[in-house]
Amino acid sequence: MRPHAIGQRSETVRRANLSAIVRELHTRGPLSRSELVASTGLTRSAIRGLIGELVAADLVSEERAAPLGTPGRPSPLVRLNSEGAVVLALEIAVDSLAAAAVGLGGEVLDLVRVDRPRGHFSVDEIVADLVELAAPIRARPPTRGALIGIGVAVVGVVRRSDGFVPMAPNLGWRDVPLGERLARALDAPAPISVANEADVGALAEVRRGAAMGVDDVLFISGEVGVGGGLIVDGKPLTGVAGYGGEVGHIPVNPNGAPCRCGSTGCWETEVGEGALLLRAGHPPGGGSAEVEAVLREAEAGSPAALGALEHVGRWLGFGLAGLVNVFNPRLVVLGGLFGRIHPFVTKTLEDELGRLALPASRKLVRVVPATLGVDAPLLGAAELAFEPLLADPAIWLRPRDVLAASA
Amino acid sequence: MRPHAIGQRSETVRRANLSAIVRELHTRGPLSRSELVASTGLTRSAIRGLIGELVAADLVSEERAAPLGTPGRPSPLVRLNSEGAVVLALEIAVDSLAAAAVGLGGEVLDLVRVDRPRGHFSVDEIVADLVELAAPIRARPPTRGALIGIGVAVVGVVRRSDGFVPMAPNLGWRDVPLGERLARALDAPAPISVANEADVGALAEVRRGAAMGVDDVLFISGEVGVGGGLIVDGKPLTGVAGYGGEVGHIPVNPNGAPCRCGSTGCWETEVGEGALLLRAGHPPGGGSAEVEAVLREAEAGSPAALGALEHVGRWLGFGLAGLVNVFNPRLVVLGGLFGRIHPFVTKTLEDELGRLALPASRKLVRVVPATLGVDAPLLGAAELAFEPLLADPAIWLRPRDVLAASA
Repeated sequence: MRPHAIGQRSETVRRANLSAIVRELHTRGPLSRSELVASTGLTRSAIRGLIGELVAADLVSEERAAPLGTPGRPSPLVRLNSEGAVVLALEIAVDSLAAAAVGLGGEVLDLVRVDRPRGHFSVDEIVADLVELAAPIRARPPTRGALIGIGVAVVGVVRRSDGFVPMAPNLGWRDVPLGERLARALDAPAPISVANEADVGALAEVRRGAAMGVDDVLFISGEVGVGGGLIVDGKPLTGVAGYGGEVGHIPVNPNGAPCRCGSTGCWETEVGEGALLLRAGHPPGGGSAEVEAVLREAEAGSPAALGALEHVGRWLGFGLAGLVNVFNPRLVVLGGLFGRIHPFVTKTLEDELGRLALPASRKLVRVVPATLGVDAPLLGAAELAFEPLLADPAIWLRPRDVLAASA
Repeated sequence: MRPHAIGQRSETVRRANLSAIVRELHTRGPLSRSELVASTGLTRSAIRGLIGELVAADLVSEERAAPLGTPGRPSPLVRLNSEGAVVLALEIAVDSLAAAAVGLGGEVLDLVRVDRPRGHFSVDEIVADLVELAAPIRARPPTRGALIGIGVAVVGVVRRSDGFVPMAPNLGWRDVPLGERLARALDAPAPISVANEADVGALAEVRRGAAMGVDDVLFISGEVGVGGGLIVDGKPLTGVAGYGGEVGHIPVNPNGAPCRCGSTGCWETEVGEGALLLRAGHPPGGGSAEVEAVLREAEAGSPAALGALEHVGRWLGFGLAGLVNVFNPRLVVLGGLFGRIHPFVTKTLEDELGRLALPASRKLVRVVPATLGVDAPLLGAAELAFEPLLADPAIWLRPRDVLAASA
């Protein structure tokens, strides 16, 4: 080895290797040392040393694997200690608030969701409600002692750097410093990351749901508003400030209706919950109970309900065709309202994609419903809060532990 | 340094460091050793050793910089040897064919472009014409001896892995194995990469044009068809097969005209050259000479010409607003036709963006004309062909040179 070959600092390499190991265990679950060697490309002795550091810091435990009848010593099974590092996840949805504690590796330790009537609530009210919801979760061990981060999903446009919300039409908010407000109200003992709920919903579906292991994914989620979370080559597309993925506000209809964002003819005016309910003859602000009623009527053959679903399915295909042509994705995951209506609109949607998307890209993409249901954004907010630890676990290893491990 | 800290192989690190140096020099031009230390984060002694290897392989030369009146020894200036590695770039545009030799660092050593009438030509004809065009360029030194790759830009949808073209409506092509055909016809002594011309146009504008140094860029280029090259977080968005960026085929008008792709109401049916010419009362297949005539008429106040530009500007804004909402880019670069008409449609375009894009994203984005002109795709094809060398220059260092350098 020539001395000049080591230009990168060995400390940088060590940190990158720790990150690779923790990320593998966090997304794939317990793995044997041999599997870690195979998936990270590190040497067996490097893995042994790094695991030792993580064990000393209580982030990882090892157990002897049962021999599988194969010759040689069984490789010890390495698993993350879900109580070694815990995040608090919060969600501000259109008609509910939620809080959860999630342990390293993705184990949900605590989860509570409360419905609330739709409408415009002041930031003060919502922040106070979230603090109250989170209090018992934060007070219980292990969360009390092991909290390393707070992730927040909100139905609005979010500046990633500081959690500023320039606009959340479904809450009636403009220019709300949500990150700052929550940090103060929670007297936050850990960093807070705030993101748009479809963005983190996509992250959750990629890590633990319908898109597990897929690198090019469009997650399109409908409720009152329509949100998108876009995964490009394995990474979330955020744009320069974090405002990316606002697919609900793609103009699709030059003669369309006014949108709550201030524009007209946005995609969500044609495919959002309000459009479906209105066309089916239900009150447009009726929420998911009314949506379920429409689906029951459609099953019973109601022309109004079927016509409304046809309208939404057609426009869903119209917008998706454009996104498929732009992104050439492997998978489109339909969340929220779109996941629920998917069985009713499959044919319409496929017809529209066939008619409007480029055949080359159309052939490569599948459209599937989401699998994590209503909790996808909450679980995604937890993933967001784990990100600093996954990116650089070394900062969670105290010097004394490191020394003990390497002695 | 603990032994287990070195998990990554030192050879991997050396190759990554060589790549960082060559990439910096290729995109930024000659740099002093001190500047390389600052921009790569490598140590001075690592830089010295790696530069030695590159000098021995004839890829780099060093010259003593003139002292700047500052104390201390001047840092030697490191520059790429443009004749040390050369790529052949080819372009199949709608109304021209082009070939160029480009040296490492981006120096254009040779360039020839021939106009051809528009229309459907057989693959045989176009391949034969390109081979003929490239022959004298390939025969001249340094290209003859230093050719390391061939990049091809084509007006069509391209599978990146092998240069297969499932569809190129403006050439009348379907399912053409262009990469394979060119490799055979050129008796190619170096790997061939084929890409869509807007995709590589974007790459060129980011490396050497209007978007230099910007990480989130939409390059939208219009001629007969409309193409897009999207740069997300510094990387080209290709999608799973390379078909991404087909913005010209985003459905925008539910009541629109048939498109040559087989769909209807695609963006290019409203903003492409044909739409402009038709509305201005010119033959829609008239090409850039007719476009120039429309612009002259608009300058003279012709209502038909001004109306046609207004129409195109309005639809350009309609489509761009959606893309801005989805990508939250820093910069939109308008190429080809859109660059030429930009001065005439600036106000309409800005008005439409103001009306239809989310204010948060709108505020962060600038719309500017491209600066590389008609050669952007050709220069981008050259960049594509350089990519393997930039990613891993070590494979171009013969073992003997390496030994000599480290002796």
